[in-house]
Amino acid sequence: MTDATDQFETRLRQSATETEALLTSLLSEAPLPDEIGRPQNLMAAMRHGSLNGGKRLRPFLLRQAAEMLGGPKDAALRVGVALECIHCYSLIHDDLPAMDDDDLRRGQPTVHKAFDEATAILAGDSLLTFAFDIIAAPETELADRLKTELVLTLARAAGAGGMAGGQALDLAAEKVTPDEAGIVTLQAMKTGALLRFACEGGAIVAGATADDRQRLRAFGEKIGLAFQLADDLLDVTSDAATMGKATGKDAARGKGTLVSLHGTAWAEQQLDTLAKEASALLEPYGTKAAILQQAARFIADRTS
Amino acid sequence: MTDATDQFETRLRQSATETEALLTSLLSEAPLPDEIGRPQNLMAAMRHGSLNGGKRLRPFLLRQAAEMLGGPKDAALRVGVALECIHCYSLIHDDLPAMDDDDLRRGQPTVHKAFDEATAILAGDSLLTFAFDIIAAPETELADRLKTELVLTLARAAGAGGMAGGQALDLAAEKVTPDEAGIVTLQAMKTGALLRFACEGGAIVAGATADDRQRLRAFGEKIGLAFQLADDLLDVTSDAATMGKATGKDAARGKGTLVSLHGTAWAEQQLDTLAKEASALLEPYGTKAAILQQAARFIADRTS
Repeated sequence: MTDATDQFETRLRQSATETEALLTSLLSEAPLPDEIGRPQNLMAAMRHGSLNGGKRLRPFLLRQAAEMLGGPKDAALRVGVALECIHCYSLIHDDLPAMDDDDLRRGQPTVHKAFDEATAILAGDSLLTFAFDIIAAPETELADRLKTELVLTLARAAGAGGMAGGQALDLAAEKVTPDEAGIVTLQAMKTGALLRFACEGGAIVAGATADDRQRLRAFGEKIGLAFQLADDLLDVTSDAATMGKATGKDAARGKGTLVSLHGTAWAEQQLDTLAKEASALLEPYGTKAAILQQAARFIADRTS
Repeated sequence: MTDATDQFETRLRQSATETEALLTSLLSEAPLPDEIGRPQNLMAAMRHGSLNGGKRLRPFLLRQAAEMLGGPKDAALRVGVALECIHCYSLIHDDLPAMDDDDLRRGQPTVHKAFDEATAILAGDSLLTFAFDIIAAPETELADRLKTELVLTLARAAGAGGMAGGQALDLAAEKVTPDEAGIVTLQAMKTGALLRFACEGGAIVAGATADDRQRLRAFGEKIGLAFQLADDLLDVTSDAATMGKATGKDAARGKGTLVSLHGTAWAEQQLDTLAKEASALLEPYGTKAAILQQAARFIADRTS
């Protein structure tokens, strides 16, 4: 491991610690103004589904993008936590028996296993709703114009035309295998949209120009592709102990991925290309872009 | 039926028609800017769960509150549609087998019956997400300050501290019957919070003073109590054919309501009191308040 890689991973862990600390405090049982009460069991399920030691990659990307463009750090952390709430809600719902029916997530029982199905559905709904609460709340110190833009962009990334729609396509793909274009669209929606938002959202927090915002968005799209490709590759090459969840699922379900179409050697080459293309997009920012460029490499090379 | 009642019901139906027309156009299959695609099956499920001929009471209240305080009509209609998306998502998820397990809603198969469970979960998630999209979108012509306030207030009304938390309490109440205070809190969260938002949200759309906003909020709380009490009363006194859904469910589940505690005569008296108290709150607005005052009476007296 090189010094740069070492330093990057330390920074990523540090950011995850900060993200979890804020998330923990926001998901306490003390009601916020205008809330009538916070049911203990529901809050516990929301914490179970969100405070389970993920890498917090999306908030990290958002915070780094905002920082590179001179955005306010506290607001970036809060918007990052909002984004993580969306990500965690999607995992809780995807794990449900009616969906992917997973019993394990990061080595722990999934929310519907630890609690029950109804509570898992409501915990997901509540985390999704809470994401917009966090962005709009007065504690997020940003101009209302930027908050509106964040709400809109996040809703489009997460909704029927983005992540949730991608999950619908993914379920349909278990019955009728999509062609390559179909797989690309499915993945751009299911996992790409939220990673794209992480990068573009950081630019919005920084009040960036349309040009900078577009550039971060393009960067987000590249790493979104890389993230999914690495995931599909790991499903073939890794084992459950390393991943903390079931592997080999895609093949078992006859689900088409770019790896099943083009093979693992192609995928490894393609991951390298995507990391380079993503890095190149950020060259205009010089050394300030170093961490995001390392993040692109980290995502392409990840082993868990 | 008096002329005033007749006129009120015509107005309510007219508003429902306008609400459905906008909802229909927003839930078409043409992707919005930034959306990657809109899966046909998912959009069909979202339409099935939201375009099924409800009274559209919440958008009506929001629009009337905004109009009474001089707010812009187009924006009020859009925010009303956003609110209806939240209401419809909650019905789709509440009907799921893991929750209330209902096969019928307004005489039609529920979304998980007409489609499947996974699609119903995703359709609910997508409608919930879309509500915030609609408020933040540029087509909603309101100051960003008001949009931020709407997003925050709606998220608090709908989330763990409001409607979703109320549903969690409702599920728990099937195992351990709550005391009277517990029932009141449960109902204030499960149904009251969104009706309160309908009235307060209309005031926000109108850019109302803190005083007007508080008054509309108090009005919303009164009619929220009346709405739930009427619902509990109808569960005892009505039949499935009139309601378009199963009745007698509360008693069958041994679920405590204020009607089961205090009886139907008390409930009828209480409904009359709530309608009068709600009306009195709006006296400062003179004749402009007439429609909202009729709405309070309509909610207290409703027979379906």
